[in-house]
Amino acid sequence: MLKFTFLGTSSGVPSLTRNVSGLAIQSGKSKDWILIDAGEGTQHRIQHAKLSLQHLKAICITHVHGDHCYGLLGLLASAGMNGRKSPIILIAPKQIQQWFDATCQLTELFLPYPIEFIDVNLIDQPYVLNEQMSIEPIALSHRVASYAYGITAIQTQRKLNIEKLNQLEIPKGKLWGDLQQGQDIEWNAQTIFNQDIIIQTTQHVYAIVGGDNDQPRLLADKCKDADVLIHETTYTQAVLDKVGPGPMHSSAKMVAEFAQDIQLPNLIATHLSPRYHDQAGVQAIQDEIAQYYQGLFFIANDFDQYELNAQGELSQLHSGKPWEK
Amino acid sequence: MLKFTFLGTSSGVPSLTRNVSGLAIQSGKSKDWILIDAGEGTQHRIQHAKLSLQHLKAICITHVHGDHCYGLLGLLASAGMNGRKSPIILIAPKQIQQWFDATCQLTELFLPYPIEFIDVNLIDQPYVLNEQMSIEPIALSHRVASYAYGITAIQTQRKLNIEKLNQLEIPKGKLWGDLQQGQDIEWNAQTIFNQDIIIQTTQHVYAIVGGDNDQPRLLADKCKDADVLIHETTYTQAVLDKVGPGPMHSSAKMVAEFAQDIQLPNLIATHLSPRYHDQAGVQAIQDEIAQYYQGLFFIANDFDQYELNAQGELSQLHSGKPWEK
Repeated sequence: MLKFTFLGTSSGVPSLTRNVSGLAIQSGKSKDWILIDAGEGTQHRIQHAKLSLQHLKAICITHVHGDHCYGLLGLLASAGMNGRKSPIILIAPKQIQQWFDATCQLTELFLPYPIEFIDVNLIDQPYVLNEQMSIEPIALSHRVASYAYGITAIQTQRKLNIEKLNQLEIPKGKLWGDLQQGQDIEWNAQTIFNQDIIIQTTQHVYAIVGGDNDQPRLLADKCKDADVLIHETTYTQAVLDKVGPGPMHSSAKMVAEFAQDIQLPNLIATHLSPRYHDQAGVQAIQDEIAQYYQGLFFIANDFDQYELNAQGELSQLHSGKPWEK
Repeated sequence: MLKFTFLGTSSGVPSLTRNVSGLAIQSGKSKDWILIDAGEGTQHRIQHAKLSLQHLKAICITHVHGDHCYGLLGLLASAGMNGRKSPIILIAPKQIQQWFDATCQLTELFLPYPIEFIDVNLIDQPYVLNEQMSIEPIALSHRVASYAYGITAIQTQRKLNIEKLNQLEIPKGKLWGDLQQGQDIEWNAQTIFNQDIIIQTTQHVYAIVGGDNDQPRLLADKCKDADVLIHETTYTQAVLDKVGPGPMHSSAKMVAEFAQDIQLPNLIATHLSPRYHDQAGVQAIQDEIAQYYQGLFFIANDFDQYELNAQGELSQLHSGKPWEK
């Protein structure tokens, strides 16, 4: 039901194998997608991942630090140069709007489509993007105001009640098709109402994508309903202890212990400090999570793709493992 | 004497083979370098080209359009996160300083080193970067104020006057070494002054790197002294005629005719519209230049390297030809 494509998994600065933050999320079979964060170079990653800027419906920025937003300007400019006309929804701290406005003025950027800006701080109930998706921000703890985004994917299936159709002796063919399409029909001089024939089932999954955060427990309430949590693990605990609490990031241990405590079924770790970008570094993060968490988890690489199905099961569709290239 | 590394050669938007504008220039054997323009993703290109942000002395921005400056923020931020302490000189339109200041405030960017900002519009004589290089802006014609940068590279050689040393019967060894190092020496109870023994020769080369520009002839005066011109050729003439003059770019024909008229010895064409990023497209630009210009020329690819030697001869050190990858 939800497909996640990691466009950047590095903390702070890009390396040769990992770009700064960016995550594409698609719901169902729709070409439409949303983007969580847009570090510099996100539009380049989007090209390589063969995602279309024309189908990008919304961008959610977790916080104002450059490694999460400096790619926003070029991405919006390129969408304009490629002829985009339809609006983009931008959910972000209000400083992002001020920065975007200042950029338009000072660099003479004129977009041929509207930006529908929504101040993340003013959202008090899930924002309904469309029939397939809604988005709710959750406040985190970082050096600046930072948010996670809770993504609810909704899949509605409409099936014909075959038993009833047979009872009414309605023959297969055009009439069944009309009912499937949502129309009422005439049969044996009476009106057969669509709602009496269609069985509608709705499935939900819920994913939480964190921004930078040094208190995973702030997500405890929302995580009760989450099928997957995507969270930063910037350091191992030993390095976090050495660096100190100043940067306000989480260690792999902190996230893993939290996930275990709340019995989270699926976890994806991302936002790795560049000291962990080689195979040994990833292994260190991996080992630390495995020590404290017994659920299913992955360490995201750039270009990794994951799917969360309607049963809330997470699987990896594609691995971008950079050191095997 | 000058080495050019092309970091981005696309106009407007990046493609899979060409990034937006960025050009690294090194003088002599120094590790120090300067950067002309910083489109989004320039810091990523710098990593791939194995250039060090620690040795970047100055950044010159030709104009405020995003494809020439949106990579500035991430590049400066990354240099800070990598521990840079020494200042960076930033020569640019004053809007770039205002934009940088707004960005620092709104995205909480704190650099641990100073930016020495110089308003390009206020430079009225060549800016002396160091003993090896000076930089002068030249006003161009585009939709916004746009500049070329004229780069003078200076190479000074100090040679001992062997004939004179032999006349004075000064023996080889430490005394010759002291003279070579710039010291006066005592010999036969008299002072031998360094300036009487050293033959100093100075060589200059001059390169012009254009910003976006629809009037190559604005460079005519300065090009009289130029060993190489690096200029945009956004379109072929046929496409420019179709697009119209609105975007205010040059065609390959316009640049080639100008170069031929002024008997320019060397030309590098760059800033190609994405419609020319395949092999046929590059060939079309190539053919059009060859039709009107008889000097030496190249169409720059990303990661191409060129050297301009002390005799003003241009050669290609490395070809990045993207379609052969």
